[in-house]
Amino acid sequence: MDNRLEKVVDWLKKENIQTAFVHSTENVFYLTNFHTNPHERLMGLFVFQDQEPFFICPGMETSQAKAAGWNGEIIGYADHEDPWQMIKEAIDARKITIHKAAIEKDTVSFARAEKFLEVTDQPVLVSLEDELNEIRLIKDDKEIEILKRAAELADFGVEVGVRELKTGVTEMEVLAKIEYELKKKGIREMSFSTMVLFGEKSGQPHGNPGSRALKEGDFVLFDLGVVLEGYCSDITRTVVYQSVSDKQKQIYEIVLKAQIAALEASKPGVRIGDLDKIAREFISEAGYGDYFPHRLGHGLGINVHEYPSMAHTNDSLLKEGMTYTIEPGVYVPEIGGVRIEDDVVITANGAETLTKYPKELQIIKK
Amino acid sequence: MDNRLEKVVDWLKKENIQTAFVHSTENVFYLTNFHTNPHERLMGLFVFQDQEPFFICPGMETSQAKAAGWNGEIIGYADHEDPWQMIKEAIDARKITIHKAAIEKDTVSFARAEKFLEVTDQPVLVSLEDELNEIRLIKDDKEIEILKRAAELADFGVEVGVRELKTGVTEMEVLAKIEYELKKKGIREMSFSTMVLFGEKSGQPHGNPGSRALKEGDFVLFDLGVVLEGYCSDITRTVVYQSVSDKQKQIYEIVLKAQIAALEASKPGVRIGDLDKIAREFISEAGYGDYFPHRLGHGLGINVHEYPSMAHTNDSLLKEGMTYTIEPGVYVPEIGGVRIEDDVVITANGAETLTKYPKELQIIKK
Repeated sequence: MDNRLEKVVDWLKKENIQTAFVHSTENVFYLTNFHTNPHERLMGLFVFQDQEPFFICPGMETSQAKAAGWNGEIIGYADHEDPWQMIKEAIDARKITIHKAAIEKDTVSFARAEKFLEVTDQPVLVSLEDELNEIRLIKDDKEIEILKRAAELADFGVEVGVRELKTGVTEMEVLAKIEYELKKKGIREMSFSTMVLFGEKSGQPHGNPGSRALKEGDFVLFDLGVVLEGYCSDITRTVVYQSVSDKQKQIYEIVLKAQIAALEASKPGVRIGDLDKIAREFISEAGYGDYFPHRLGHGLGINVHEYPSMAHTNDSLLKEGMTYTIEPGVYVPEIGGVRIEDDVVITANGAETLTKYPKELQIIKK
Repeated sequence: MDNRLEKVVDWLKKENIQTAFVHSTENVFYLTNFHTNPHERLMGLFVFQDQEPFFICPGMETSQAKAAGWNGEIIGYADHEDPWQMIKEAIDARKITIHKAAIEKDTVSFARAEKFLEVTDQPVLVSLEDELNEIRLIKDDKEIEILKRAAELADFGVEVGVRELKTGVTEMEVLAKIEYELKKKGIREMSFSTMVLFGEKSGQPHGNPGSRALKEGDFVLFDLGVVLEGYCSDITRTVVYQSVSDKQKQIYEIVLKAQIAALEASKPGVRIGDLDKIAREFISEAGYGDYFPHRLGHGLGINVHEYPSMAHTNDSLLKEGMTYTIEPGVYVPEIGGVRIEDDVVITANGAETLTKYPKELQIIKK
């Protein structure tokens, strides 16, 4: 059995949980290497303490699951068959009594949990998410290599966006061009809704791109990422268009220095919450503490937001192989906002940034 | 209280259900006119038999909810507050005992259902989806008007795609251009992953666009739609590139005639399942019954797949204001597949098609 599944089995034994039911695209991918979204159709990986795990999915997908590398038991079902009946039979065949089971409580629907309870004689249900999030926390070399290539494509997206800037162009036009060029490179999915915000709109941390036209003196904020081979990237860069005010320059330098400070402090053994503190204290001392309303960043991997949370409350320590974003921001109504975000991997020597697009303030002249 | 909420209240009374908890983006939008996706944050509309409903959402969104038209009680919460505690207080203030409650069982997470049970003293939970799907089945004039405009944009998407065809172009390049032109028109979201499939790949009903390059004699299948003001469109067209074989022509004509037959049979009072039968019998008589592996179509509205299901087993009758797709397809391995799909609204006189892109076989010469 592979190392990832073994970790789940060890946890089941330790906690005396008889089975884990994994249903989400992300966690099924992590444990089977099969990446699919069967939409309303059920799929599930069932893991046990001592018995063979099994994977159930729509019949038309079984060959793809095998090709992806799943070589355990696999059950395919046709649209007219009841997968829950087949799950019941597979569990019954393993001759165990399930008193306690782990499910992805935050994502499995109530209807599916009810079905699961029915076919397993109503065990106590515990959460599987925290444990899987912990297991996914440390990336292996192959994962880091994919994350690097995903980050390169995010860099390219910013490059395209900057190239498209001209007086009068709209946010949506620039956004459309970025996604167009990425799709031409084979990217089927962005890791979240691409953000291109001009001027005062960059001052809204959750603004929506629209028909705002670009004009001299605007901040331009890009926030984007791609999904590549199941892994996400996420970059933010802010530039100014044609001319820059002293105030804009000041805000930019504060955010940049805070971002670099958190980056330089990143190394194995450091308390994660301290990174947010370092960036936040720097921004607060410069007088902009009230304008930095979000945490420093988030873990990055199969999900665009995963463990570790880069919040000041996180007492865990950084470890080699963790990947996350560092993205302080300062948002001043009217003037606009600056956010600078890199994707980072922790190595023995400190943080290596995966996103490489330049961070020095750029004044785009056209 | 508006008509839609009234229908929910009537149902609660009839079934003796004390409250309905609506949490999905789609159903909250339908009942409040507020369209948002708060991601991991909770939102919920709580409806009662006799007491005022209330809506809870992240504090930063309350003003947008009001602006969208929600004028009932609204509760905003900050990130450090527990929305479930606030829900408990709002329910307690209404002084009712909740024995039975309706939730969206198929989409609400198990974790949220558990929280809901805690703050409402463990009522029996029944499904809310079927009832809301029934209520949403008949579209009003405003909804139909939006669906028409969404369908026009889908037509435009096919136009762009056809225009991009040239020898050697890849599926992803054509797909990228279609989405680019739609995004430039302000479309932020496609209603599902756009499909552009060439040649033998069009023969896979769930194929994935990739780097397949276009060559003479290929079928080209487009399947796409946009989300406009909360409503979806969905069109499929198939063309051939440069030259056509007799076999391709034959398959195309069979699918087209089956599609038109189902369209012409669409009028109020007709059993829905009969439409699938009409198209399927036509295709079977032509010898391709085994190559039409899916139902005739699906309801269309806020969700790209909703009620009514256009399956042969659906015994309900067509009514004015129903909107759905008619999309028979024939997929022959090696040769490729043809699918032709229109969006349709039922009027007193029969079916009106919302998608207008031509359906006669086009041989694209370049």
